[in-house]
Amino acid sequence: MKKILLTACAVLFSTATFAQQALFGAAQIVSPQVNADNTVTFRYKDAKAVRVQITGDFLPETEIEIPNFGKMATAGSADLVEKDGVWEFTTPAPLASEYYTYSFIVDGQKTTDPANVYINRDVATVTNYFIIKNAAGDKGDLYSINKVPHGTVRKMWYYSPELGKNRRLTVYTPAGYETSGKKYPVFYLLHGAGGDEEAWYTQGRTTQILDNLIASGKAEPMIVVMTNGNAWQTAAPGESVEGFAQPSMGMGGTTNVKEAAFELHFPDVINFIQKNFRTYTDKKHRAIAGLSMGSFHSENISKYYPTMFNYVGLFSGANVGGGLGNAPATSDVYTDFDKKMAIQFSAKNAPALYMICCGKTDFVKKGVDDLRAYMTEHNYPFEYMETEGGHIWRNWRVYLSTFAPRLFK
Amino acid sequence: MKKILLTACAVLFSTATFAQQALFGAAQIVSPQVNADNTVTFRYKDAKAVRVQITGDFLPETEIEIPNFGKMATAGSADLVEKDGVWEFTTPAPLASEYYTYSFIVDGQKTTDPANVYINRDVATVTNYFIIKNAAGDKGDLYSINKVPHGTVRKMWYYSPELGKNRRLTVYTPAGYETSGKKYPVFYLLHGAGGDEEAWYTQGRTTQILDNLIASGKAEPMIVVMTNGNAWQTAAPGESVEGFAQPSMGMGGTTNVKEAAFELHFPDVINFIQKNFRTYTDKKHRAIAGLSMGSFHSENISKYYPTMFNYVGLFSGANVGGGLGNAPATSDVYTDFDKKMAIQFSAKNAPALYMICCGKTDFVKKGVDDLRAYMTEHNYPFEYMETEGGHIWRNWRVYLSTFAPRLFK
Repeated sequence: MKKILLTACAVLFSTATFAQQALFGAAQIVSPQVNADNTVTFRYKDAKAVRVQITGDFLPETEIEIPNFGKMATAGSADLVEKDGVWEFTTPAPLASEYYTYSFIVDGQKTTDPANVYINRDVATVTNYFIIKNAAGDKGDLYSINKVPHGTVRKMWYYSPELGKNRRLTVYTPAGYETSGKKYPVFYLLHGAGGDEEAWYTQGRTTQILDNLIASGKAEPMIVVMTNGNAWQTAAPGESVEGFAQPSMGMGGTTNVKEAAFELHFPDVINFIQKNFRTYTDKKHRAIAGLSMGSFHSENISKYYPTMFNYVGLFSGANVGGGLGNAPATSDVYTDFDKKMAIQFSAKNAPALYMICCGKTDFVKKGVDDLRAYMTEHNYPFEYMETEGGHIWRNWRVYLSTFAPRLFK
Repeated sequence: MKKILLTACAVLFSTATFAQQALFGAAQIVSPQVNADNTVTFRYKDAKAVRVQITGDFLPETEIEIPNFGKMATAGSADLVEKDGVWEFTTPAPLASEYYTYSFIVDGQKTTDPANVYINRDVATVTNYFIIKNAAGDKGDLYSINKVPHGTVRKMWYYSPELGKNRRLTVYTPAGYETSGKKYPVFYLLHGAGGDEEAWYTQGRTTQILDNLIASGKAEPMIVVMTNGNAWQTAAPGESVEGFAQPSMGMGGTTNVKEAAFELHFPDVINFIQKNFRTYTDKKHRAIAGLSMGSFHSENISKYYPTMFNYVGLFSGANVGGGLGNAPATSDVYTDFDKKMAIQFSAKNAPALYMICCGKTDFVKKGVDDLRAYMTEHNYPFEYMETEGGHIWRNWRVYLSTFAPRLFK
């Protein structure tokens, strides 16, 4: 019996002493705590802090002034109130079903919630997250891991002859892919500036959204390919041979590669996917969409390769005239906008769905409105979805959830 | 030209306003900063903090007293010194090549480094990490992503008839798997208590270690399967239908499943892998190893299924007598220790390698020494590797790096 007890002890302590220290430290506080009425309480333990605030995408937005740019909406903040060394804030109203992110600001220093192990990175910003869900099929439910068949997510590397590099991407295959013997259509899903092949997998909740949409019969089983859209990178920071640099949205890297390098290398991605997965290889079974920079990429790629995609989604980023970034728009990918659009929307090539999505207060809305006006004027068919809010993940998850069920039907 | 500039702006700001706020805030400080001599400087910005400390596995260990258990070594701490609102600490000596983890302690509250986006979770402890590497082939180099062919990592789900559950696991396939048409041997790699199918993938650096060992010809190309060893769970916290519970090392969950449930369901894992991957299916091409609880699992599974594994690795956890956890050891998996060992080490079944590894100061060393003495007494062949230090990831990465090259040769 003593042997068994010793074993029990061994098992109980079977992890790093580093973890043990945390476990045997002072009792943990609970944060965030979702209350019965879906208000949420946040707690931070620090008897000596002077001021503790919370900032998160469930708080009313405020405007900040960006030098040389103008005003921009940003997540608001609220003060926590201290009692016996524990700071606390409860949302004044219940939160709607959604995936939320937040940080604490302790004496001016933004930091994570030490009581919440759930963390994601958006470019260089690390935040905690939590999900509120109320009912089957609502947003929080769609973004959650539910009792449905689950697809497989692969982190893998492909060689691009065009870029002369091995590069990393994320591939979702639907439940049953491994053993079905079937071919699948492919949806290429692109991130924004500063993001990488992890973005749609993490805060994009692509795995959960696709698992749930497919399980409920709302979306067709499909492969989703999440590329790294920064042609000068091999992979996400920390996942690449470049090591642990601080991620940034800077476009400096673009000067190291040819103009339109990402667009021009895209056939390498498609070739790799078609060689390594059981896919259909015709236009009818290919879709592309992206957010922000990825939206420009999707606009440019689908226009430059007009026989490649039958479904195109532009989420929060579009313009008339082509071009992308701070390089002169001289690449053949960007020039001859009118001519290329005419070819893309000719009777022979016109995509089955060209969907443009934008938030009402998004700072890219002018370019989006310009493209819509241009397309209307030229009788190029498209659909338009407008949502509240701006250039935020909350909208991109909604656009993905709306676009994916329209594909391959 | 104006259009291009506007596009450039759009691209530059193409991510959540939440991230933008961080980007347009005060200039970021650099932390950690690896200096030319491999000392490392850490910085934390907070003019109002009273005391800022750092704790990490590169600081001298201290002993803490665990109630009802005794003394245990744990990571030490050091004070940062404040100047103009920025707290700073530089290691007094250069750090050796290694993967390191650390946290700040601000006025008693353990927290992450806001300037370092690289974070891992070990059970309920979230820490930052960084790597020091000096030369090709040293530990830091072995744990880094290098310019070598990279394997694929899959996060996938399998159904266990024995447990009646869909469960998640992590699978590494070596570079070239997708197109080689070849069969591969399989190495099953198990985590410790409180860990899950993410543990060996994150702080275990399994992907990097295997990529590098295979590329240098030191290890055979192999599939590595990282299971979830908590039979009552479906997946890692936050990745399961159970949602966002705080992870813990508690064994309470074991009362919800049959004794030895994980061991008994293991053939379900093997069947799934053999059905979904191109693997050899004989004993000669199967290995199993685990750390701590996973080491007990490996001891028990290899003994209960004596014709299944040709290579067994016990990393920091073993005993004479079988049994695991706080349940009475009455399961057929644990009983008849002498008889089962005699069968496992019979001429017909004896594994090609039975490797026991332990740290000199590990609190499980008594059980490990007992097993070694028992095996020596019975003339059961095994190899033993002893390292400095205790029950820590630093040792488990070394054991993996030593064990993997011995497999399938």
